Amino acid sequence: MNGLCSNEYKKIDERDINFLVELLGKDRVYYGAEINEDYSHDELGGISKMPEVMVEVLSTDEVSKVMKYAYENNIPVVVRGSGTGLVGASVPLYGGIMLNMTKMNRILELDEDNLTLTVEPGVLLMEIAKYVEERDFFYPPDPGEKSATIGGNINTNAGGMRAVKYGVTRDFVRGLELVLPNGNVIEVGGKVVKNSSGYSIKDMICGSEGTLAVITKAVLKLLPLPKKTISLLIPFPNLQMAIGTVPKIIKSKAVPTAIEFMQREVILAAEEYLGKKFPDNTSDAYLLLTFDGNSKEEIERNYEKVAELCLNEGALDVFISDTDERKEAIWSARGAFLEAVKATTTEMDECDVCVPRNKVADFINYTHELQEGFNVRIRSFGHAGDGNLHVYVLRDELTEEEWKKKLSEVFECMYKRARELNGVVSGEHGIGYAKRAYLFEQYDEAYIELMKNIKLAFDPKNLLNPGKVCQ
Amino acid sequence: MNGLCSNEYKKIDERDINFLVELLGKDRVYYGAEINEDYSHDELGGISKMPEVMVEVLSTDEVSKVMKYAYENNIPVVVRGSGTGLVGASVPLYGGIMLNMTKMNRILELDEDNLTLTVEPGVLLMEIAKYVEERDFFYPPDPGEKSATIGGNINTNAGGMRAVKYGVTRDFVRGLELVLPNGNVIEVGGKVVKNSSGYSIKDMICGSEGTLAVITKAVLKLLPLPKKTISLLIPFPNLQMAIGTVPKIIKSKAVPTAIEFMQREVILAAEEYLGKKFPDNTSDAYLLLTFDGNSKEEIERNYEKVAELCLNEGALDVFISDTDERKEAIWSARGAFLEAVKATTTEMDECDVCVPRNKVADFINYTHELQEGFNVRIRSFGHAGDGNLHVYVLRDELTEEEWKKKLSEVFECMYKRARELNGVVSGEHGIGYAKRAYLFEQYDEAYIELMKNIKLAFDPKNLLNPGKVCQ
Repeated sequence: MNGLCSNEYKKIDERDINFLVELLGKDRVYYGAEINEDYSHDELGGISKMPEVMVEVLSTDEVSKVMKYAYENNIPVVVRGSGTGLVGASVPLYGGIMLNMTKMNRILELDEDNLTLTVEPGVLLMEIAKYVEERDFFYPPDPGEKSATIGGNINTNAGGMRAVKYGVTRDFVRGLELVLPNGNVIEVGGKVVKNSSGYSIKDMICGSEGTLAVITKAVLKLLPLPKKTISLLIPFPNLQMAIGTVPKIIKSKAVPTAIEFMQREVILAAEEYLGKKFPDNTSDAYLLLTFDGNSKEEIERNYEKVAELCLNEGALDVFISDTDERKEAIWSARGAFLEAVKATTTEMDECDVCVPRNKVADFINYTHELQEGFNVRIRSFGHAGDGNLHVYVLRDELTEEEWKKKLSEVFECMYKRARELNGVVSGEHGIGYAKRAYLFEQYDEAYIELMKNIKLAFDPKNLLNPGKVCQ
Repeated sequence: MNGLCSNEYKKIDERDINFLVELLGKDRVYYGAEINEDYSHDELGGISKMPEVMVEVLSTDEVSKVMKYAYENNIPVVVRGSGTGLVGASVPLYGGIMLNMTKMNRILELDEDNLTLTVEPGVLLMEIAKYVEERDFFYPPDPGEKSATIGGNINTNAGGMRAVKYGVTRDFVRGLELVLPNGNVIEVGGKVVKNSSGYSIKDMICGSEGTLAVITKAVLKLLPLPKKTISLLIPFPNLQMAIGTVPKIIKSKAVPTAIEFMQREVILAAEEYLGKKFPDNTSDAYLLLTFDGNSKEEIERNYEKVAELCLNEGALDVFISDTDERKEAIWSARGAFLEAVKATTTEMDECDVCVPRNKVADFINYTHELQEGFNVRIRSFGHAGDGNLHVYVLRDELTEEEWKKKLSEVFECMYKRARELNGVVSGEHGIGYAKRAYLFEQYDEAYIELMKNIKLAFDPKNLLNPGKVCQ
């Protein structure tokens, strides 16, 4: 990699702090011991490093001035939203400046003629959902972590539950305002529906994990809010039968909004974690489907076909949730799975490979083999309908040394199998710091070289979030 | 721009021809006078240049070997499909090798479990539509030019009629096989629905107009074929009223598949060109809408709302086309608009700006002012529902000199107005050679510099389609 090496980065000194305080005011500049330890890591754990200075920015102009200063002085910069990432992407490996975007959190405009919502990057996903749904609009991307910022969602190209029908975050970003590493501000895309005007920088920024530019504004695409939504909870005797049914659902040409799979152990963990009962916990495995549309009949026709198909494939029952209360009971549990699994163990790490939809069963079966073979607890749930799995390896009572060894061996096996199944390293959580080794195993030198060249095209001094993704 | 200057490119000599003949056989290598004049231009006219040698390739391996040879010998390469482009993107400005992809035209796999179709780049759009629809699947992108290759469609990120509901070509490309300018072959994306594994090279290649890599295979996303489609032809007293209704349709939360606008002059031209009557030609302006879905009731509810809305806004009538025959009569005319307008004049050039949907009326009104002010015929039709306009300036009896001057002045005004309305230079036809000046006017130096850096990241010797897009 060209660009600066870590030992060429300038360390923060008094002059830098004076510059930042003059620009932002004393209240928004945190230096050394003033910085909360939380800012040294994300939800991954395992990797942490404090920034030398953390600043809260309020405007594009402030971001631009900080970046320009950092560029002129060779100071690395890491951008951070809510810190809900799972791969260490917002950990400032080389210290330097952390740009805290959470106070750039205004919803700037709802444009009903063009069906767009313009937001600052620090707006939370749950705030967007509430805002648009109250106004009868719909922002389909629906990752489990609702307290993530939209800036973070765009940077990981988060997918979520509804990707089966609607696609991922990138598909709902129409335009971005960006601050480049040298401080220049550009706008890419806009409110337009079609755009073939030069290289699509917007699409490349989505999923670039804060390594290419700082997002300071986003124009999101909205849809009309579907008038009806219904959820089906479908118990199966075992996971194989549940997951094996998914390609048949896809093939049946019904179009569910979401198809999630879950196992009894995870449901029990969620019940304990939330102190609330799940509608049913007597079966080994479940599919959870939603359908949306604008009329009861339209949805009914769709889900009746799928319900019948599932029963023919051995489903034990079909529970229909058409009230808000019942849906809430199911989906709040689904939303708590990650935290619930985490609460059952001392530490865990996660694999979010995405495989072709008809390879999900193969992959999950393989994780069961690994669980037995390595004598380690492995829990999984995820998006059966789009092939994106969330598989957790749990440390439990292992010593630090045992854990590191076992985790590394189990991950090595999992990512190898994902590659064999024509899957990819990450479906939606990104590469960040933690998954780089698997990215390097997936792609050959020509591919990695090209990614490094792209990084340099945006960031020739390698100042923005160095040490991540392809580095 | 770094990279090679045109005078450093190597000219084709006997040794090069021998290499190509040895690799591909004599029948697939066309040299000098053997090359048909058609290969010197696309549908734009106005700009033409012959390649020094044109080769028909049949496999990824052949493409890779030709690229490697060209890379080692500093020979420029231009990729060509059906040559239906409108901005000169496939014109070999610096001679060199033309890669003719039209014989790499196999449909490789329909994967019903994963809803994907894998194709070679030379398959025609009409062939894909026929193949999947016969099997009850649906590839939504629907540009007017059905004899374009899918490789060309991906390279312009073509949009077409159904972008209102379904999005553009990029949204339906899941994976690509690419030959890089140095001959290396990489695969990006795949059959997976979600992917956050490093920079999205796939999304950047879509719309890159053959300047970054050669597409040798594409994995397309399919949908189940909607069971019913209905078209509404809605006459209005004038264009202002027709187009002014579109944002209201969008706001009504009905979701049409397509919303096209057309004027009487263009319909008359199409009737004459096709020798067939259009269902109605008595009104000044029309909206043409389609709705699709899986039940008659579902579609009816949607279109009845829109029909009522249009009548309230002053529509003169609503013609419903629900038989294949009647739909064919309308849509075959719509598909012939470009050729029909062309047949009424001596020469023409086109502007395909995309503006926010609620600015379409402003822009079209402005073209009427230009028509009067410059005393030149201007005809337009296009995608009112997504803001992508196709505006044609007609030469008629102007001398070459008058035409060039007037066209340049009219275009200058149009692109300026598009920028003022927060539109972009091209909605779907691309920048190629002809629209570079307007791209340079739209974006500042920082933006253009970034695009040039991206070009060099893929193509450090500037050999692939030089002189296009941002150069």
